[in-house]
Amino acid sequence: MKEQEFLNEIKEIQLLTEAIGLLEWDSQTGMPEASSDFRGETVGYISGMAFERSVGPKVQEALAYFEDHSEELSEVGLAVYNKVKEDYELNHSIPAERMQAYNTALTNAHAAWLKARKAKDFAEMKNEIQTIVDFLKEFIPYWKKDEATNYDVLLNQYEPGLTVEKLDQIFAQVKAGIMEIRTTVAEKGTVPRTDFLSRQVTKAQQRRFVSGVAEQLGYDFSRGRLDDTVHPFMLALNRKDARITTRWDETDFTMATFGVIHEAGHGIYEQSIDSKYDYTPLATGASMGIHESQSLFNEIIIGSNKQFWQKQFPFFKECTEGTFDDIDFETFYDSLKETKASLVRIEADSLTYPLHIIIRYEIEKMIFNEDVSVADLPQIWNDKYEEYLGIRPENDLEGIVQDVHWSGGSFGYFPSYALGYMYAAQLRHAMGQEIDVDTILASDDYSVIKNWLTEHIHQYGASRKPNQLIMDATGEALNPQYLIDYMKSIYYDVYKITE
Amino acid sequence: MKEQEFLNEIKEIQLLTEAIGLLEWDSQTGMPEASSDFRGETVGYISGMAFERSVGPKVQEALAYFEDHSEELSEVGLAVYNKVKEDYELNHSIPAERMQAYNTALTNAHAAWLKARKAKDFAEMKNEIQTIVDFLKEFIPYWKKDEATNYDVLLNQYEPGLTVEKLDQIFAQVKAGIMEIRTTVAEKGTVPRTDFLSRQVTKAQQRRFVSGVAEQLGYDFSRGRLDDTVHPFMLALNRKDARITTRWDETDFTMATFGVIHEAGHGIYEQSIDSKYDYTPLATGASMGIHESQSLFNEIIIGSNKQFWQKQFPFFKECTEGTFDDIDFETFYDSLKETKASLVRIEADSLTYPLHIIIRYEIEKMIFNEDVSVADLPQIWNDKYEEYLGIRPENDLEGIVQDVHWSGGSFGYFPSYALGYMYAAQLRHAMGQEIDVDTILASDDYSVIKNWLTEHIHQYGASRKPNQLIMDATGEALNPQYLIDYMKSIYYDVYKITE
Repeated sequence: MKEQEFLNEIKEIQLLTEAIGLLEWDSQTGMPEASSDFRGETVGYISGMAFERSVGPKVQEALAYFEDHSEELSEVGLAVYNKVKEDYELNHSIPAERMQAYNTALTNAHAAWLKARKAKDFAEMKNEIQTIVDFLKEFIPYWKKDEATNYDVLLNQYEPGLTVEKLDQIFAQVKAGIMEIRTTVAEKGTVPRTDFLSRQVTKAQQRRFVSGVAEQLGYDFSRGRLDDTVHPFMLALNRKDARITTRWDETDFTMATFGVIHEAGHGIYEQSIDSKYDYTPLATGASMGIHESQSLFNEIIIGSNKQFWQKQFPFFKECTEGTFDDIDFETFYDSLKETKASLVRIEADSLTYPLHIIIRYEIEKMIFNEDVSVADLPQIWNDKYEEYLGIRPENDLEGIVQDVHWSGGSFGYFPSYALGYMYAAQLRHAMGQEIDVDTILASDDYSVIKNWLTEHIHQYGASRKPNQLIMDATGEALNPQYLIDYMKSIYYDVYKITE
Repeated sequence: MKEQEFLNEIKEIQLLTEAIGLLEWDSQTGMPEASSDFRGETVGYISGMAFERSVGPKVQEALAYFEDHSEELSEVGLAVYNKVKEDYELNHSIPAERMQAYNTALTNAHAAWLKARKAKDFAEMKNEIQTIVDFLKEFIPYWKKDEATNYDVLLNQYEPGLTVEKLDQIFAQVKAGIMEIRTTVAEKGTVPRTDFLSRQVTKAQQRRFVSGVAEQLGYDFSRGRLDDTVHPFMLALNRKDARITTRWDETDFTMATFGVIHEAGHGIYEQSIDSKYDYTPLATGASMGIHESQSLFNEIIIGSNKQFWQKQFPFFKECTEGTFDDIDFETFYDSLKETKASLVRIEADSLTYPLHIIIRYEIEKMIFNEDVSVADLPQIWNDKYEEYLGIRPENDLEGIVQDVHWSGGSFGYFPSYALGYMYAAQLRHAMGQEIDVDTILASDDYSVIKNWLTEHIHQYGASRKPNQLIMDATGEALNPQYLIDYMKSIYYDVYKITE
């Protein structure tokens, strides 16, 4: 077995993955609806083929050979080997027929989730969620290495190196910090004016504005594109084809504006991975949390920055052709950072968002480490919303059935979103040690910011672990205080609070 | 070997083909340009896999087994078997290394063609075309069964059953017929007014009109879509996903109008194939010529019909919002059917178009049956244009390098376009025996026309040969007189000629 032979096998699997990527992108951006059955067959077949190859004889042979001959691998070859080995162990440890049964359970759970949404009632999917939880509890011993608890095993699949012990501490700190800001804002703050945010801005006007902003932030449209979809996402086929999507609301321009800024952050990450990782599984983000750190750096760091908006305001006014002529900059800026408790995660503002994640984290931990009954989950969910956010869902659609993740088996995934927030703030702080970020955001050229992120994060793709990237980039391990400080500075400014 | 096993192998090859189809569609409708190298790798890999499977051990085994056990096949299974066998013999008879060398020659020729276009000089691609011709002359003996001449072998690959002997006769008749019409029109005709055709019609206005017309003609947008491209085409992934494309010129609405009507004809064909052929190579058109007959039925039969335009004119006026208020219907209709000699095939009107094909046919026949030198082709080309159309190219871009076909190895393909014209006119005549076509086109409901075509052509997919389809649908073999008569009736009406 030569390195070249190994890398060629991996490349062919990647090429299948690219094809699957396009099939998925297409099915979410404009595939004729009627053809979803045909599409399902194609995706199912090619995905199956890619999976079989990823645990197939050639990969097995390569893993066995290079286990004893790692000195024959180049630097890139070794990094690919390590990643392939990790994925192999994750995928191959479960008996095939159990994995197949699990996939069937996921299909059933997705159908049940759609029903539960319609009925606004978790009861419709309770049994299916129980089945998924049972499967995962059956699988966890296969996956477990030296993790302390069952839920640690799941967390690690999305954010390698993360533990319940760390997260408990971090989330306690974040929660306390956010609660304090919320209390202060509620007691002493001046609520910003927001009535004008619902003024009509056409899709064409919004598109012009957000495309311009995304481009200035470093998203390369010659290696990407922006399409319409229902549930926005970024999908990268490769570093020269990282596509972003959005939805538009003509009476709420902030949705597509922050949405595109967010997705552009994901896209810039993928576009900036070192070409030496082309056609390998390292040509992607280091983890979900790190990926979110890049989209959220755009959305909540740059997107909350006053200098940035001061610079963009004339362009915004130009694109909206007079609609906001009566609004001065301060009023405009403040309106973008209103905070308000909400029931639905994806509609949350940046201050309350982490609380939505902490609720999900606490419930997931209860399921896997404390064996709480699935039947009790809606009650627990609603109580937590009341406790943390002061509002209570009137039905399960506003509550526990709002997200697709659990019916998709993605327990352990939600914390990534909150990690993204904290990483982004920590990166902003480290960047500030070297670069005058505010001055750059007031200027015509943001490339220094993008280049800093590429140098410290993007270029490495998935060749480094999240904790290593953050340590190298910021000089310390994950520290949630930066997020709290950042939120405080933004929201106290907007709400005119002087401590 | 069970039938199910055979059909499953064929289905998997079809699923790969669908993925390739989407990759191709995407690369021509909006793929980020920069990523064409990545895309080339993906398409190359999956196409290679599909090809290997199509001549691989499972297909070989099935062909051998069912050769002696055809009684074990269902009706559909037998039809699939026959098609797979045909394709296998075509693909498998050439030694693999020669086929690979040929594919390399095609890649080189495509690059040379692009150079020749830039230089407007055939000399830039002369050697590469010679190489392709040499390869085809080497391959023809492998493919030859009972065809009379070398060029017959090539013709048969695109239109099974077609011969030089038949085409010589047919084209002589078509040429004489068109020449006579052209002479009469030039001598006695009143040239229609066309100045207003260049009035500004926005893309949105055009899109509304042509989408509406395509839908009325039977193109099902819930199983298709309309996108922008440079070189318009239809691409069907399956009968529920048959996509059409167009380009737009805001100062020439006729381009997209007739373009979309044309592509919709291809799309309707694919959408209407019997579902029993799903996931088999029979779920496509019977031949290039039959496929063109459906697009051209839309474009030149319906698209030249006065009742149709009379019905559509108010809708056209509505979509164009006053731009043509000063134009009466007769003037409008006549303007659409102006005829004028042109050098470029894809810009030709429907009367002169067949002459462009006949020129190519005669040259291809000279290459393969008379061993004319490739170096002499530009001279021959230019002389023929002067003789048949009365105009002479000033450079090779207006002449012999205008089309991509020869550099792609597609000798024998051009006649399909002319066959499409003749089939369409013959189908129109047969349809007229059962249906009052003019009255239907003046009405709100064109479904009778579409249903007639589905009953006689579409439903069969590739399970029947072109000559059988035409014979069954019209009661006689290909007869070019219907095209000549039809052209005469249209152009004499527009040019106000009373014989």
